[in-house]
Amino acid sequence: MPAAEHSAGRGGIDLGGTKIQAIIADAENRVVGQARCPTPHEGGPDAVAAAMEGALREAAVEAGVDPAGLQGVGVGSPGDVDGASGAVANAKNLPAWTDSYPLGAKLTEALGTRVAVGNDVGVATNAEYVLGAGRGHNSVLGVFWGTGVGGGLILDGTPWHGRGAAGEIGHMVVKRDGARCPCGNHGCMEAYAGRSAMESEARRRVEDGEHTDLFKLMAKHDKPRLTSGIWERALDHGDKMAEHLIDRAVKALGAGIASAVNLIDPEIVVLGGGLGVRFGERLGPDIRRHMEKSLFLHDDPPEFQVAALGDFGGALGAALLVA
Amino acid sequence: MPAAEHSAGRGGIDLGGTKIQAIIADAENRVVGQARCPTPHEGGPDAVAAAMEGALREAAVEAGVDPAGLQGVGVGSPGDVDGASGAVANAKNLPAWTDSYPLGAKLTEALGTRVAVGNDVGVATNAEYVLGAGRGHNSVLGVFWGTGVGGGLILDGTPWHGRGAAGEIGHMVVKRDGARCPCGNHGCMEAYAGRSAMESEARRRVEDGEHTDLFKLMAKHDKPRLTSGIWERALDHGDKMAEHLIDRAVKALGAGIASAVNLIDPEIVVLGGGLGVRFGERLGPDIRRHMEKSLFLHDDPPEFQVAALGDFGGALGAALLVA
Repeated sequence: MPAAEHSAGRGGIDLGGTKIQAIIADAENRVVGQARCPTPHEGGPDAVAAAMEGALREAAVEAGVDPAGLQGVGVGSPGDVDGASGAVANAKNLPAWTDSYPLGAKLTEALGTRVAVGNDVGVATNAEYVLGAGRGHNSVLGVFWGTGVGGGLILDGTPWHGRGAAGEIGHMVVKRDGARCPCGNHGCMEAYAGRSAMESEARRRVEDGEHTDLFKLMAKHDKPRLTSGIWERALDHGDKMAEHLIDRAVKALGAGIASAVNLIDPEIVVLGGGLGVRFGERLGPDIRRHMEKSLFLHDDPPEFQVAALGDFGGALGAALLVA
Repeated sequence: MPAAEHSAGRGGIDLGGTKIQAIIADAENRVVGQARCPTPHEGGPDAVAAAMEGALREAAVEAGVDPAGLQGVGVGSPGDVDGASGAVANAKNLPAWTDSYPLGAKLTEALGTRVAVGNDVGVATNAEYVLGAGRGHNSVLGVFWGTGVGGGLILDGTPWHGRGAAGEIGHMVVKRDGARCPCGNHGCMEAYAGRSAMESEARRRVEDGEHTDLFKLMAKHDKPRLTSGIWERALDHGDKMAEHLIDRAVKALGAGIASAVNLIDPEIVVLGGGLGVRFGERLGPDIRRHMEKSLFLHDDPPEFQVAALGDFGGALGAALLVA
């Protein structure tokens, strides 16, 4: 472990709605230990914090380090994150997590090292900016296509958070009076492109008598929901409904990303997230084509890349919080 | 003229598609002289530059100063502005102005003082940030509702230009596959809200046999197009088509501004431009209501204000370029 010469390394935890990914990074931001576990859906924030501690400890064992000896541990969390205190409120996709919960303080106590908490999409965008596809660029728009669609902004080399809630690219309106979004509004990009909204739409269509193998594949592979892998299998099988709903998502992503580019004019767009990483190669060119169609200036589009850090991006970005 | 104690003042010229507004500002950014003339539609960039010189000289006479003695003159221009050289290319709404034209150099020579050129919407946003409705805020989204719909961004106290083309809020997609925009794309906010697009739509509807008094009012008041004043009169008369098209514009503005707010999360939205200033009091609350409907976070909307500097905003912002 070369990092041992410089420090005992840093921990990073990406807290997602379905899984918790923990890593240990060395001084050169290489992953020297990692562990993953499902996000507990019972027991509220305390259970989630305990699972996060467990995953981090497991990653530390793999890296051969003691958590208490780490330079620190960073956390990328959904919801409203108070970076100063490490408290998290309204963590979407996590059950029974509405009130503010002192996640940073709990983990600091449990792990015996300082813990910093940041916004999940923000830290993932920063990871791509510092270590991944956005390296060397001055401005980056990160688009994280997964259960929902999140966005992150690096402007002039610095993360932009606005008043604390910037980056909600998934809730840019791409079709006024359009489909209802999980957020309650209408016509948001996420209403067409979010995995969760796509699954709801597929269920509605099945109820209306349309045919699809999506839910058969879900049962066959013993999944609790239409994962990115199930969508991919359905596309491979030529499932018409899957093709149609993915096409709808791709067009919404293209329009929404173009809107953001027309407003911000970044040097590069980085497409990440569960669906973004899985479908980057297959659908990235289509998303890009639809984006370019709606750009105001057609002759100088931004670069467009799939996230380079894959599944570890969020956790690596979290570890950067304590670099 | 109290400014004389400090300097001979600064000039500012707002170059618009229909009129040129020149001012002289004193050290406290008060307008101490002003002149306005129509933008020449023959003679190309040379004729426009000559008219700009004329307007600035007229404003200087009113202010009792010699242009050559000014601290400098700032210009807010449409099109692609090269701030370093003062060259302007692709000046939309200005005839025969596609190639790069050395506007700054020509005016420097003509006026005998240094001339700085900036983007029209950018300088108008900066004027509202420094002197107007955005004063005291750290981040400002300027929305200029006129012939087209332009946007300007102040982020962390600094104008944000992206790679040089940021702020095209009018070309954010609010209705995928929607109405054709003057820019050639479909479903842009400007396709519904721009004065020019609204006039085209009104003409199409008249051709389809719909009734309106808009064009009768235009002829009666001897206007070459549906100005903001004509739209206002038509609303006052209860003209159904005018009401419908303005309502459509208001909804598109609301959705587009909400999209921008969801992405950027600015402290304040400032609504300016010819239509924005004229209709600010009457329609501002509706635009705001439609914006708030499409915000991702409903409990903490940004401030929403009509531009405070009115018709002089662009020229005052231009004068700030040489402050």
